[in-house]
Amino acid sequence: MSHSSDILSRLADTIESRLPANGGDPAQSYTAKLLAKGPDAFLKKIGEESTELVMAAKDGAPDKIIYETADLWFHSLVALAHYGIRPETVLAELARREGVSGLAEKASRPDQASATKESA
Amino acid sequence: MSHSSDILSRLADTIESRLPANGGDPAQSYTAKLLAKGPDAFLKKIGEESTELVMAAKDGAPDKIIYETADLWFHSLVALAHYGIRPETVLAELARREGVSGLAEKASRPDQASATKESA
Amino acid sequence: MSHSSDILSRLADTIESRLPANGGDPAQSYTAKLLAKGPDAFLKKIGEESTELVMAAKDGAPDKIIYETADLWFHSLVALAHYGIRPETVLAELARREGVSGLAEKASRPDQASATKESA
Amino acid sequence: MSHSSDILSRLADTIESRLPANGGDPAQSYTAKLLAKGPDAFLKKIGEESTELVMAAKDGAPDKIIYETADLWFHSLVALAHYGIRPETVLAELARREGVSGLAEKASRPDQASATKESA
Repeated sequence: MSHSSDILSRLADTIESRLPANGGDPAQSYTAKLLAKGPDAFLKKIGEESTELVMAAKDGAPDKIIYETADLWFHSLVALAHYGIRPETVLAELARREGVSGLAEKASRPDQASATKESA
Repeated sequence: MSHSSDILSRLADTIESRLPANGGDPAQSYTAKLLAKGPDAFLKKIGEESTELVMAAKDGAPDKIIYETADLWFHSLVALAHYGIRPETVLAELARREGVSGLAEKASRPDQASATKESA
Repeated sequence: MSHSSDILSRLADTIESRLPANGGDPAQSYTAKLLAKGPDAFLKKIGEESTELVMAAKDGAPDKIIYETADLWFHSLVALAHYGIRPETVLAELARREGVSGLAEKASRPDQASATKESA
Repeated sequence: MSHSSDILSRLADTIESRLPANGGDPAQSYTAKLLAKGPDAFLKKIGEESTELVMAAKDGAPDKIIYETADLWFHSLVALAHYGIRPETVLAELARREGVSGLAEKASRPDQASATKESA
């Protein structure tokens, strides 16, 4: 399997090409249509897809969980594109937390670890 | 920057090591505590973080959008770990859709493109 | 204005008449169609409408807040009807909490008041 | 059981008395604390409680459904109070829709009924 960074970065590239400012055509693409409608349209999808992920998880249905997580991440990427944020920045934030958390948990101080929201 | 697959895969590895079955200690780690509480605890976080992402986006605040997206993706990874699903599988689903979508949009048939929910 | 119990109770009566078991016809009514599709259909709407309420509130738009709150409460009533629960039972729970909270706050003990999630 | 309008109206009165502008004391009441924190605090609760309602419904657990619906309605009322909107206005909107819907469905035109989102 190719690197996920390739996948997320490539998907972000594709989504960015669908932005109205980049000539995205609402008649040709679901993403272009969503971006053309503005924030409320794709932010609403984030609320909707997170609910669908929760329901799929309660069903314990792996295929649906995979599908809904993909939907949720996809619509997150659409929001990021609108606000000019790259997925690599989010991944860097996750990497930063993991480093912080690793140190915090190595210190074996339970109260500190639980106080740090980001600690994995 | 390192590949995001490294980041998501490494983060999934860390989260999996916090599973109760793998000896995760709720007193030592936020993730272990969340996983020990069971699905409702981390699924609730997905609903909460998606709402916080929506609010950060409405504020147009890039730092908060990055932070809340990281929170949302992190808690998605916690849910995936509980259900034995790797993030690489979700990324493969996203890659599959992008391939399908690429073909659909190349065909330049608006109605088909808009009918395909997954089309980017 | 007539009593809200009249409104919520009457609305619950109407929704209950749209249940498949009561002969609700999906071709004649939005509610009957939603109930015929089963829980995931109307629960998804609760996630969707709560997100729309949050966005309307962030916009500070009273008309939209009223509209989206009505949507959210309506779809809550649809869920209640499916599970055989009357809105009067939810209102009784709210009344019970208010009574408890009234007493708790009268006692002027801040830590107790804040510890009681239901305290108004 | 007393009229629900009494309950919702009385609860709205209580919540309004907890507004910072009305002297609500964050140290004495959960609601006053929530209102003092500002919109993001109580809007986040709407996202959280709607997710908890969805999970309770997936569990088919009546007691939890009642409890979470009460939580969701309560936090909706907190939001309404902040924005200066009375629950009676939301109930009037629901009554208005029911009237519209009643007429629409009486006409027995399926396409019209399904096109009207508000039709019960």
